[in-house]
Amino acid sequence: MSWIDDPAFARDQPFGPQTLPYGVVDFGDGQQVAVRVGDHALPLRPLAADLGDVGNLVTGWTLDQLLAATRAEWSELRARLRDLVTGTGRPHGAQLVPLADARVRLPFTVGDYVDFYSSRYHAENVGRIMRPDSEPLLPNWTHLPVGYHGRSGTVVVSGTDVIRPHGQRRGSKGPQFGPSGRLDIEAEVGFVCGGPVARRVPTSNATEHIFGVVMLNDWSARDIQGWEYQPLGPFLGKSFATSISAWVTPLDAFAAARVPVPDPGHPRLEYLVEDSPWGLDLRLAVEWNGTVVSRPNFSDMSYSCAQQLAHMTVNGATVRPGDLFASGTVSGPEVEQRGCFLELSWGGREKIKVGDETRTFLEDGDTVVITATAPGEEGSVVGVAEVAGTVLPASAGDGG
Amino acid sequence: MSWIDDPAFARDQPFGPQTLPYGVVDFGDGQQVAVRVGDHALPLRPLAADLGDVGNLVTGWTLDQLLAATRAEWSELRARLRDLVTGTGRPHGAQLVPLADARVRLPFTVGDYVDFYSSRYHAENVGRIMRPDSEPLLPNWTHLPVGYHGRSGTVVVSGTDVIRPHGQRRGSKGPQFGPSGRLDIEAEVGFVCGGPVARRVPTSNATEHIFGVVMLNDWSARDIQGWEYQPLGPFLGKSFATSISAWVTPLDAFAAARVPVPDPGHPRLEYLVEDSPWGLDLRLAVEWNGTVVSRPNFSDMSYSCAQQLAHMTVNGATVRPGDLFASGTVSGPEVEQRGCFLELSWGGREKIKVGDETRTFLEDGDTVVITATAPGEEGSVVGVAEVAGTVLPASAGDGG
Repeated sequence: MSWIDDPAFARDQPFGPQTLPYGVVDFGDGQQVAVRVGDHALPLRPLAADLGDVGNLVTGWTLDQLLAATRAEWSELRARLRDLVTGTGRPHGAQLVPLADARVRLPFTVGDYVDFYSSRYHAENVGRIMRPDSEPLLPNWTHLPVGYHGRSGTVVVSGTDVIRPHGQRRGSKGPQFGPSGRLDIEAEVGFVCGGPVARRVPTSNATEHIFGVVMLNDWSARDIQGWEYQPLGPFLGKSFATSISAWVTPLDAFAAARVPVPDPGHPRLEYLVEDSPWGLDLRLAVEWNGTVVSRPNFSDMSYSCAQQLAHMTVNGATVRPGDLFASGTVSGPEVEQRGCFLELSWGGREKIKVGDETRTFLEDGDTVVITATAPGEEGSVVGVAEVAGTVLPASAGDGG
Repeated sequence: MSWIDDPAFARDQPFGPQTLPYGVVDFGDGQQVAVRVGDHALPLRPLAADLGDVGNLVTGWTLDQLLAATRAEWSELRARLRDLVTGTGRPHGAQLVPLADARVRLPFTVGDYVDFYSSRYHAENVGRIMRPDSEPLLPNWTHLPVGYHGRSGTVVVSGTDVIRPHGQRRGSKGPQFGPSGRLDIEAEVGFVCGGPVARRVPTSNATEHIFGVVMLNDWSARDIQGWEYQPLGPFLGKSFATSISAWVTPLDAFAAARVPVPDPGHPRLEYLVEDSPWGLDLRLAVEWNGTVVSRPNFSDMSYSCAQQLAHMTVNGATVRPGDLFASGTVSGPEVEQRGCFLELSWGGREKIKVGDETRTFLEDGDTVVITATAPGEEGSVVGVAEVAGTVLPASAGDGG
């Protein structure tokens, strides 16, 4: 019986000893690195001496030092931490902070943020809605994971309010300017990079450079995006905010969740072949004001994180600790598996039932929470912590 | 007569006392902040005490501290530096290092990198080449400065070699993979941001958040870009390298070069109106293996840096010190004013004369140097330092 007395710290719960995600908390005493155990944060600075050689990786203000370490060090730290939290004796200096009493911070300094577009269902749905007169999938889609760079400076931690953005949108007599009327989410899985700076990372080397997993909400203003995005892609329709969960679940925790990605129907170029699969059986839930409106499964994604990283670096671009890449909206084949409201409302034409009300796009005051779980080893369950955000009116952004 | 004995440190030369760009140099003694005077670097750490209150802004390893200061501090530092370099007495500790003996470093930590597309001539030429069956300018173009995010982790300093990237390109029987066969440049002007973190920066406030100007070469692999870029924009065709000059010319130096941007032919949305103009009469020269192949003028650009910054932040996105945004390829109305080889060779169909040889796109070993000058006050000339790069064969990237 562990010294941690928290019923949520159990193998059949998402944040038991099989998960152990890292984050950064501030409970009035400055911020520090912590590990999540059930519904508590365990700050690690006081325990550095108990963690051996790798204890110095968690004494900073953020996860940056940890991300700059190596896969071998990440594994060693995880093994030592697991011993520490599953032991019977409370380590000297250990302080368990209820999550409700800890303010979470952005856990790492975000380098480059890349957003992929790897759900065939999402890409087909968006193609049908936005370009109804042409083939929903463009010819490149089944050959490469389409992606683009987003704004790393506006990546925020779960719980940060999102101010409705202003922008230009298409009007009948030229563009109009004002608050977005089609504010949306995108339910995504984010991958946090670490390890030595590298270029041309083969799929077989992904674990050296992917540290862990976050939930990610790529907030999207569809009216702004629709007017601006040709020919160079999304810009202000996305760059106002991207939220990530406060806790980064180590990639190691997903060993039992690995599945092959769907076959593209033609041979892959060699650099995208995986010798062992990195698709993940990760089940998402999208809650809108408390109502679950979608349950997509990440195993429906057409490209894995290893393939995305291999593609992103195959041109010689470097990957460095703190780089973040996201899967793209996770949508499945069923209506109730669509990962954004553009799809769920089919371009705003169909009402979505949200509690006792209906919606198409987000209204001020609305809150969205996205979570996920995966099968863990020996029948356990592995969680990815929630990413939550509430929409504030556009006027909240005045004068700032 | 200044104590600096360098014929290039004169008012009729680009790097006289009217210019005073900042950079970071290493001459065997660790890197430090320096100001460029003629063909010399003057390291500033030994002179901090001579610079008063603002001397502490230039004692670090990079320009990051300086960028995080305020416009008032930038102006004060510039005034004090001008006194220091134009005085007759050599300050104690001053050490002039010939540029040939100093290794330049990336001068600041790049936050987000945004690339605009603000030359009407470039956009029209590219439209005609890439989409010959449709209108060259899309409807949004005259209403907003089209832009997208690039990869900040692969921004490199002038002089860094550029390895020819690998990637997918369109083939007759599906995509092919290999080194790019259509490696190109884009001659651009970059703007380095500083000052307090801000959102919704009006055009009238641009000088509080734009610190200075660099030359920028947005290396582009046209075959990779052409296959990947729809629907979400350029990605691997650009992300392998973006070069900037080693010296950042302060925005203050361009007071005499300000000109209105061309009229768009319809009223502008209010947030894009300038009460005083921020177009710049900046004359670029693009040298390919020593032959000047293009002389575009930045005054032909349709959007100013102030309009670009206002647009980039109008949705509530923050701008922070170290953010970098680029103008987009600078092209003019004449053939010899085209700012990239895609345009100069009209999609690879026309040979470009380069010395005794001809080219369409870049060959291994080719070197490109881009420079610019602007009119300065009282008949002087203000320079933006060169951005130079040499192409290495794709095989140089193996095993890295």
